[in-house]
Amino acid sequence: MKAEIITIGTELLLGQIIDSNSQWIGQRLAEIGVNLYYKATVGDNKERVLDTLKNSINRSDIIITTGGLGPTQDDLTRECIGEALGLELIKDEELLMDIRDYFDKMGHEMADNNIKQAYLPEGAVAIDNPEGTAPGILINQDGKVIVAMPGVPIEMKAMMIETVLPYLKKKFSKGEVIKSRVIKTCGIGESSLEELITDILTEQTNPTIAPLASQGEVKLRLTAKANSEEEADRLINLKEAKLQERIGEYIYGYDDDNLEGVVAKLLWDQKLTIATAESCTGGLIGDRLTSIAGSSAYFERGIISYSNQAKMDLLKVKKSTLEKYGAVSSQTAKEMAKGVRNLSKTDIGLSTTGIAGPGGESLEKPVGLVYMAIADKDGVESYRYQFNGSRERVKYMTSQMILNLLRKRLLAKS
Amino acid sequence: MKAEIITIGTELLLGQIIDSNSQWIGQRLAEIGVNLYYKATVGDNKERVLDTLKNSINRSDIIITTGGLGPTQDDLTRECIGEALGLELIKDEELLMDIRDYFDKMGHEMADNNIKQAYLPEGAVAIDNPEGTAPGILINQDGKVIVAMPGVPIEMKAMMIETVLPYLKKKFSKGEVIKSRVIKTCGIGESSLEELITDILTEQTNPTIAPLASQGEVKLRLTAKANSEEEADRLINLKEAKLQERIGEYIYGYDDDNLEGVVAKLLWDQKLTIATAESCTGGLIGDRLTSIAGSSAYFERGIISYSNQAKMDLLKVKKSTLEKYGAVSSQTAKEMAKGVRNLSKTDIGLSTTGIAGPGGESLEKPVGLVYMAIADKDGVESYRYQFNGSRERVKYMTSQMILNLLRKRLLAKS
Repeated sequence: MKAEIITIGTELLLGQIIDSNSQWIGQRLAEIGVNLYYKATVGDNKERVLDTLKNSINRSDIIITTGGLGPTQDDLTRECIGEALGLELIKDEELLMDIRDYFDKMGHEMADNNIKQAYLPEGAVAIDNPEGTAPGILINQDGKVIVAMPGVPIEMKAMMIETVLPYLKKKFSKGEVIKSRVIKTCGIGESSLEELITDILTEQTNPTIAPLASQGEVKLRLTAKANSEEEADRLINLKEAKLQERIGEYIYGYDDDNLEGVVAKLLWDQKLTIATAESCTGGLIGDRLTSIAGSSAYFERGIISYSNQAKMDLLKVKKSTLEKYGAVSSQTAKEMAKGVRNLSKTDIGLSTTGIAGPGGESLEKPVGLVYMAIADKDGVESYRYQFNGSRERVKYMTSQMILNLLRKRLLAKS
Repeated sequence: MKAEIITIGTELLLGQIIDSNSQWIGQRLAEIGVNLYYKATVGDNKERVLDTLKNSINRSDIIITTGGLGPTQDDLTRECIGEALGLELIKDEELLMDIRDYFDKMGHEMADNNIKQAYLPEGAVAIDNPEGTAPGILINQDGKVIVAMPGVPIEMKAMMIETVLPYLKKKFSKGEVIKSRVIKTCGIGESSLEELITDILTEQTNPTIAPLASQGEVKLRLTAKANSEEEADRLINLKEAKLQERIGEYIYGYDDDNLEGVVAKLLWDQKLTIATAESCTGGLIGDRLTSIAGSSAYFERGIISYSNQAKMDLLKVKKSTLEKYGAVSSQTAKEMAKGVRNLSKTDIGLSTTGIAGPGGESLEKPVGLVYMAIADKDGVESYRYQFNGSRERVKYMTSQMILNLLRKRLLAKS
């Protein structure tokens, strides 16, 4: 069966609020195995609400709306649903009493406007609203289910959890479970990653595999359908094993993992301490490494050696190195990493130096050129990267790459 | 004219990511007076993308899509637009060269998959993508405008700002000018700010005033409609003068200004240099101060003095101070700020020390307690704040407050 969500409200179109309702409903539907095919948003305009509803009822089996159930003139959902389905609105006296009770309980008098909320399309069932006045609407007509809920998230969520999800599960679920796992990779672009696993992507059926690129990483989402949680896990594990074999070196984590968290765990497990010497990243790596609760166990200090003077004073980068090779060079990166490790007496020293742009480039050293280095008890290694994009992007990509290089080095030594 | 947005991607339907793109685009369209009538979201499925596109093209004048322009098999937007409009896809050799150049510059080889991104529907114009490989698509057919952009927010936003919004403004504006100015405040909460200007908010008609709170700041968006730019500016200036009188001390900037940029300008203008000593913020302030192009003119260095050893070694915080008052204290914050100023020989030294949480609190020192200090030639001043919320929030709020305190100090001395 096909489901869709319609969120109603001009404020959503103007971008005054973000549509978190449909995200939340989408997650819940996925969990009970209901396929969401479309989402639509429309303003508080009768013609367009009606047009959208008719289109949805025509093509889908489950239609869930939020918004437009309040007592004011621009709350149109109730009458549009009635009109779209050819159902008359009928006053429900019991419902009216409930609404009156709600106001009494709050010590307010019910406004006449609220009477409107006691009207339901013929044959509809009211959905109890434990958090507010506007009841929801549930209609089952010719095998199609139409659900209307208020736009206030706390009211909508209570209705979904207490009434709508149990109803849909009972009616549409065929004992089916849907589970997802997100595999996170770093150090390879989306298209190169896909080329490595073209055959696995092509043969995908269950679980399905969806690649998704974001800044500095590519995710693969595996989604399996099965008759039990165990079976879904088994299907995902099988597919993941195949992927591990092919692209294991790029996989750094799962689901809510981030690179700094994975690096933090490796440092904890290996009881290692770290210090950073940042030039072009300006403190971003320190910020990321200290974003993990308990980071003082591994993060000793960081030097943001922006000026050459700071590089010489604190990190003991040689003046001759800066003069001969420049601040943005493999040699300087290495001396910075060694320098901060010596200064801090940590197990690991890490450095970045580059041209974040937009200014500051030369013929041999374009914007986006970055050198990084990692020093440990076995010596120091440097890395050269050329990034493009904005200053912000160059900084972020640098932090992402050096954290990934560190992750691989820690893994290799564990 | 009627506009609509289609966001494409199964991850949006599953609720794995929130659709912030359509919110942002909705805000920008409202600013230039384009009426957004519908938003739709559809998964990576050819039949449904095509169905949605056809429906939109049929009823609207401007259709803006995001997502589905990548190089992979499930990126379908390009071919669906072609099919919906009856336009053949043609390889654009120049575009292919641009994409190759992009990879060359990064030092990678272009994957064959990426060739797909050089195809455009007949008669379409490529929209330059300064932040990635996938170019956007702009089509003007029979008075209708179809725009397709990638789903990666940074890429989409760059295209909107540089190409799409200027194009739509020129093509669809009818002599009526809508202008907005965002006034940005820091150091006061949303409800307190609103109380100070209740009467101004109540009497608003043209320009309208919309308050909007985000982390560590409150914005006021003034939007005026008029027959000319000059008239719109005049109306906004009048209203702003009223607001300045009432809440001027909290206003730090306008529109795209951010606190670090405003502070950077003050430092430049006054030819001052700065160094930072960060404990709880872990490098975030350095990161923000170096996010401005040309920051090496004022930012000399930063010390992320996470351990007490680092505070003593580099910043000359006295052992007795740490023992008597603790690392999170006004005394330590002051010694850190003075210490980093002496070490770096800068005009200004700035420090933060606090308990970012979630662990590390004691009876007298709860999570969220932060001390900060600013040292300059006239001495050193410390500040105490108590924030609440997550570790990330405490770090960010700390950076926001100290930058605002520095801004006010620089203004007072200019």
